[in-house]
Amino acid sequence: MAISDADFSVYLEELCEFLRIPSVSTDPKCASSVREAAEWVKSALKRAGFSRVERLETDGFPVVYAEWLEKPDRPTVLFYGHYDVQPPEPLHLWQSPAFEPVVRDGQLVARGVSDDKGQIFCHFKALERLFRKTGELPVNIKILIEGEEEIGSPSLAKFIESHRELLSADLLVVSDTPMFARNQPSVCTSLRGLVYFQIDVRTANSDLHSGQHGGAVPNAIQVLVEILSQLKDEKGRILIPGFYDDVIDYGLDQLNFDEAAYQDALGCTGLVGEEGYTALERRWYRPTLDINGIQGGYTGEGAKTVITCEAFAKLSCRLVANQDPLKVAKQVEAYLNSLAPAYASVTVQNLTAGHEAGAVRVDSDDVGVQAALKALESVWGVKPVLQGEGGSIPVLTTFQKLLGLSPVLMGLNLPEDKIHAPNEQFSLVNFKKGILVAETFYQAI
Amino acid sequence: MAISDADFSVYLEELCEFLRIPSVSTDPKCASSVREAAEWVKSALKRAGFSRVERLETDGFPVVYAEWLEKPDRPTVLFYGHYDVQPPEPLHLWQSPAFEPVVRDGQLVARGVSDDKGQIFCHFKALERLFRKTGELPVNIKILIEGEEEIGSPSLAKFIESHRELLSADLLVVSDTPMFARNQPSVCTSLRGLVYFQIDVRTANSDLHSGQHGGAVPNAIQVLVEILSQLKDEKGRILIPGFYDDVIDYGLDQLNFDEAAYQDALGCTGLVGEEGYTALERRWYRPTLDINGIQGGYTGEGAKTVITCEAFAKLSCRLVANQDPLKVAKQVEAYLNSLAPAYASVTVQNLTAGHEAGAVRVDSDDVGVQAALKALESVWGVKPVLQGEGGSIPVLTTFQKLLGLSPVLMGLNLPEDKIHAPNEQFSLVNFKKGILVAETFYQAI
Repeated sequence: MAISDADFSVYLEELCEFLRIPSVSTDPKCASSVREAAEWVKSALKRAGFSRVERLETDGFPVVYAEWLEKPDRPTVLFYGHYDVQPPEPLHLWQSPAFEPVVRDGQLVARGVSDDKGQIFCHFKALERLFRKTGELPVNIKILIEGEEEIGSPSLAKFIESHRELLSADLLVVSDTPMFARNQPSVCTSLRGLVYFQIDVRTANSDLHSGQHGGAVPNAIQVLVEILSQLKDEKGRILIPGFYDDVIDYGLDQLNFDEAAYQDALGCTGLVGEEGYTALERRWYRPTLDINGIQGGYTGEGAKTVITCEAFAKLSCRLVANQDPLKVAKQVEAYLNSLAPAYASVTVQNLTAGHEAGAVRVDSDDVGVQAALKALESVWGVKPVLQGEGGSIPVLTTFQKLLGLSPVLMGLNLPEDKIHAPNEQFSLVNFKKGILVAETFYQAI
Repeated sequence: MAISDADFSVYLEELCEFLRIPSVSTDPKCASSVREAAEWVKSALKRAGFSRVERLETDGFPVVYAEWLEKPDRPTVLFYGHYDVQPPEPLHLWQSPAFEPVVRDGQLVARGVSDDKGQIFCHFKALERLFRKTGELPVNIKILIEGEEEIGSPSLAKFIESHRELLSADLLVVSDTPMFARNQPSVCTSLRGLVYFQIDVRTANSDLHSGQHGGAVPNAIQVLVEILSQLKDEKGRILIPGFYDDVIDYGLDQLNFDEAAYQDALGCTGLVGEEGYTALERRWYRPTLDINGIQGGYTGEGAKTVITCEAFAKLSCRLVANQDPLKVAKQVEAYLNSLAPAYASVTVQNLTAGHEAGAVRVDSDDVGVQAALKALESVWGVKPVLQGEGGSIPVLTTFQKLLGLSPVLMGLNLPEDKIHAPNEQFSLVNFKKGILVAETFYQAI
């Protein structure tokens, strides 16, 4: 079952090739690279041993589909992942270029290495190894790799709807979440949902001189700041009317989590959030509202004495069961608009419109969850735990709705891997064990 | 006295040549253009008829100095202006490129055309015309044109100090402020001072995923927004302790100012500011605090679910008599620091350190002010008014202190000329009349 050094160095080089493709789905300038990444996935799956591998068009970036269905008496697993990545910005914080993967201190560092290229690559290699050993797979497999996960999978729902039969399966498997901790494998049984907004403020026809007009004219940044300062109270509670109405109590498993160590690892001098909850509860089981970006006025070097006429911010909410993302989106929009002063034009845009994501909850008795727990324990030699996860995989609600599948969330990377941030990494230990976990999992189904 | 069309079209082309030089003193990338603008001024003054014209080095960008001192029994006027300009950003709001001057609807449009290249050029042409007509000037003239006004003249104080004799004069003349209104000439008898800051917030080692960590970790933008939202109360009063302690009451001349028309011209749907004062009072005689720029997190296209670890803002205060800029700078820094929560690192930097500007007040009985009023009335055929001005010319306090000169502020452009903003303009009417006003002024001394 072990992976030879020779094999592993080949796997590493293959993954680096994948990571060099800047498949940033949110950036129009990267569109051709996103398509190149789809082609790379197609080749990798052919190389793995799948005879049927297809690139299928959607309204946006294509999906890559592969299947092996030679065991009619065995269950069919649908494996889902994504080949697109987050933008690399802010670039100046990367120690090495985001799309030039390097190994540093036992970590492979590159944008997308943990989210999700490295993790799906573990499955590709596991399946390739199974094919090589026996000429077949232990279960039937369907693979669906999309290129729009990082922008909320806007085209996938329609694609799934029109390919229900093609995608029908007994189990859905996803590796796009982290383990609980280094040397502590886990299966994840809840994810948060997501709605994302842009708020634009406009106060005049053009930017104005802060000397000539300062004291008399509205300032778009001031307006924006005043609105954004009214989103939470001093206890960290979100002030949007109705926001908490449908939130249910999850109850937290007893997990050994050291808040001080967590804080130190991130370089924070304190934690924040809703009073009355532990950090894990706040990260997994409580909804949030965060400002993700803000810009207005002069931000170059030195000083410019301007009163700007336009400013904007991006903000988003993570949602929990049973919040309805559409209902929350309306509440957020209404609240932001209600804070607009008469002397400013405020526009709120739902950037997740049409693909808002609800929260996901999975039953821990599920066959797939149990197989994942077994595979993780056998490879890591440590009893896995059940955990929640604060992130979102928006399309999972679609799989649930259209195919009746709830996901086995078998995370292979670590919480400290800086996904969505500069210097994203994937431990070589986790990379190697991840291949073995996937290999064992498909045998354990 | 009239200017022929042929002469005027030559003047226009010469000014356009000056405007094509992107002499943005705050931007290190423009350093060679700033020096090029100094050379251009030197040539223009030689062309005007000055035999002594020199480029003199300072600790920063050079000054250009010229003199004509052939009338020992007449007073000596020191004319001061600047050849550097504000940055052109935001570029996308310019209807034509900032450094490609064009005439549109009777306006010459380009960065720096009103502030201050066009205005100093009016004086150059006036002096050239006087030289051409009589071979001499009606008064002794010293000219000092600097290249760092838009960054607060950091090198000029030291230069003046070491060139007191060279610069000694009876009168100081400056054209770097606007007339009161179209067809309403004015002399300005007060300017506000300026202190300018950058505030940086840091909350973690790196940006974090808003799903994995949202709800538990501090957000640099949130911290910044909370700090900035505490700068003013709901009545527009600045909350910095001690800020208003030394502010004196100016008393306002009776001026015909239509607040509704002002608001409409700027495209504002309302005015703001300190309760209990008219818009003119708030613009000229009351101190301000404005956020000039803000940036943090993801500001590109689409959505990125990040909690950023760093954000910054730029902010500045306009000061009035008798606020001490150094004292105010300390008050602002202390207040901003006092608002920093324990879980964030907040740094406040005084970008005007060492060249903070105090407010300027001029006696309306001054000989120069009276000559300016006469010149303006003769050219415009309208009785000029006395007015205040909200902007700052930081170096004027230095002229006062080191040379004992208070300025004749003879503005030639219009308030609607969008200085420091996109589509800065200078009316061709004002350009032509500006030359005549300067010509008349030097004769009226």
